[in-house]
Amino acid sequence: MDKKLLHTPEGVRDIYGKEYARKLWVENRLHDVIRGYGYEDIQTPSFEFFDVFSKEIGTTPSKELYKFFDKENNTLVLRPDFTPSIARCAAKYFMEEKSPIRFSYLGNTFVNTSSLQGKLKEATQMGAELINDSSVEADGEMISLVIEALQAVGLERFQVSIGEIEYFKGLCEEAGLSEDTELALRAFISGKNYFAAQELLNECQAAEHYRDILLKAADMFGNMSSLSEAKALVKNSRSLKAIERLEELEDILKAYGVSDYVSFDLSMLSKYNYYTGVIFKAYTYGVGDAIVKGGRYDNLLCQFGKASPAIGFALVIDDILGALTGQRVEIPCPEPVKRVYYEKGNAADYQEKLGEAKRLRREGFPVALTPKGVQA
Amino acid sequence: MDKKLLHTPEGVRDIYGKEYARKLWVENRLHDVIRGYGYEDIQTPSFEFFDVFSKEIGTTPSKELYKFFDKENNTLVLRPDFTPSIARCAAKYFMEEKSPIRFSYLGNTFVNTSSLQGKLKEATQMGAELINDSSVEADGEMISLVIEALQAVGLERFQVSIGEIEYFKGLCEEAGLSEDTELALRAFISGKNYFAAQELLNECQAAEHYRDILLKAADMFGNMSSLSEAKALVKNSRSLKAIERLEELEDILKAYGVSDYVSFDLSMLSKYNYYTGVIFKAYTYGVGDAIVKGGRYDNLLCQFGKASPAIGFALVIDDILGALTGQRVEIPCPEPVKRVYYEKGNAADYQEKLGEAKRLRREGFPVALTPKGVQA
Repeated sequence: MDKKLLHTPEGVRDIYGKEYARKLWVENRLHDVIRGYGYEDIQTPSFEFFDVFSKEIGTTPSKELYKFFDKENNTLVLRPDFTPSIARCAAKYFMEEKSPIRFSYLGNTFVNTSSLQGKLKEATQMGAELINDSSVEADGEMISLVIEALQAVGLERFQVSIGEIEYFKGLCEEAGLSEDTELALRAFISGKNYFAAQELLNECQAAEHYRDILLKAADMFGNMSSLSEAKALVKNSRSLKAIERLEELEDILKAYGVSDYVSFDLSMLSKYNYYTGVIFKAYTYGVGDAIVKGGRYDNLLCQFGKASPAIGFALVIDDILGALTGQRVEIPCPEPVKRVYYEKGNAADYQEKLGEAKRLRREGFPVALTPKGVQA
Repeated sequence: MDKKLLHTPEGVRDIYGKEYARKLWVENRLHDVIRGYGYEDIQTPSFEFFDVFSKEIGTTPSKELYKFFDKENNTLVLRPDFTPSIARCAAKYFMEEKSPIRFSYLGNTFVNTSSLQGKLKEATQMGAELINDSSVEADGEMISLVIEALQAVGLERFQVSIGEIEYFKGLCEEAGLSEDTELALRAFISGKNYFAAQELLNECQAAEHYRDILLKAADMFGNMSSLSEAKALVKNSRSLKAIERLEELEDILKAYGVSDYVSFDLSMLSKYNYYTGVIFKAYTYGVGDAIVKGGRYDNLLCQFGKASPAIGFALVIDDILGALTGQRVEIPCPEPVKRVYYEKGNAADYQEKLGEAKRLRREGFPVALTPKGVQA
């Protein structure tokens, strides 16, 4: 036998035993909370036409998509992300619907990253999308839902960072930066590469005053006091409206009783093209990447012919499970399997033990009927 | 906007609303029953190296596999079937284990069929595999488990056909047929193409006596009386042992109290290469194909370096759901989402309605907070 036969491709894995039982428990708890907020389950295909995840719509560079062909020679793509698929469904099945639509999904995403990055290429995500609601209350609901869901699985030490992409865009506009410069600057800032950002700003035509402000904004973390500081830095209405939105959002998060878990970070800009307003990420100890990613994407549904605002998030299940394990958070184990032993070839004994197994099963115990002489 | 953007590729689909709620309910009920028999959940990757589903191991012709490449240029395949992956895991993680191993899975399978066949190319399957147990009691457990699972989702009008591949193989051996003739004959018989089977037998060297028996076997359906009739037809020990196994199996199914649901069909031969003994399929009204497919595959694990007997089955969830819908079997709906309306921009009102939503959620109701003036 070829030993290679036993292996999974790099970046994907088997999961079984207690680890998978824990994963299923986490999924169920998260799902309960999302369902409690009125989100309804939807399932989309694992692969879609390439165009659904194209550069204009998607979050993943083409070279990181798993691509293949159907018998009609269309290019198909394993979904790298659920949001474009859910947006497609909202447009397809609810084109005329004007009231809020709440969708929830659970499934796997596929990103063909270089194996050097050590990331999972197939990862389980659960998420929620709220369509047809542009209100700040919708923003507040999404962030509160994330916090309540993480609390429900026993996570205590986590933080949700909230940004607002419009603040930065207004500032670039005020400073007179070209769109190309803005995009390059955004990439440097979201990559935390301040030296490159500084160099770019030195080279560009912006007045020194604005260069300082942009760098400061890039470095701005923290609490409400920095929100007012950020407000004082700008004069343009786009940026000011962004700050006002965050102030209103904070009031709503206070009403939900979750404001201890949040902080504002105007340097969080996201490389995703489709975000348009508030964006947020949840972080916890022991996991380098965000365990939750979300934000407002008011222009995405237009790509599918429906002009509707929307906001959503994705919970990265494998990383949440990793954090819970690392932080030694206790997760209830399912009832262990009982074994009822029978004597092989003894019909009367089998009949009796089968009756016993049936009784125990009716009482809710999982039972494995096992031939005697076999070690458990 | 390109209208094509709204479409899914042929043979895959979106599922949402009540239909998906029903599907999730069916999955949960089936899972409860399988779990009750002591099967433990396992999840394998959606794609594997090509060799895991190769001709020697798999059930699906290469041209019907979805194939693509990873960055290291390995050929990857979307799983068309779970059994080879579970066999791989049993060999990889439980190579030395001698006692029975019970695995259960739920996930999607992918078969790149021609769209003319009108079959789903991505289909949800749940299944169970019992490894390291060659006993007839294991066969009986699997078939009883299938019947109990189908009953649990409310299906009443279904039938499980049971065959035994060894009966036919023994008969071909006794008749002196070449392996090629046997394989061709098997294909004709499992395709219910009796004319071609007759023609093939007329052309081959077998004595007329055996030609008659083989054709008769091919046509043999039904109950225990035909099992004894089948027994009378043969002299070779391989076929006789197969019949004895089925007789023992029937006793066990009687002990389980499920024998009303089963019938024996020695013409059921399966085109799958990996089955070695008992094979079974469940059928119901309104679905052309089998809704459950299973059987013993005592040689499959050898391919992965572990010499262990095994038996398993797969429930075709989409077809079971289709049968339940077609037969108007009632499925409990989840609690409908309540709407609590708030006045936009009125913070006091929002705070009050949020409190109401929280109370209702604690009581177990899903609640969508909705701005007033929006139609439900």
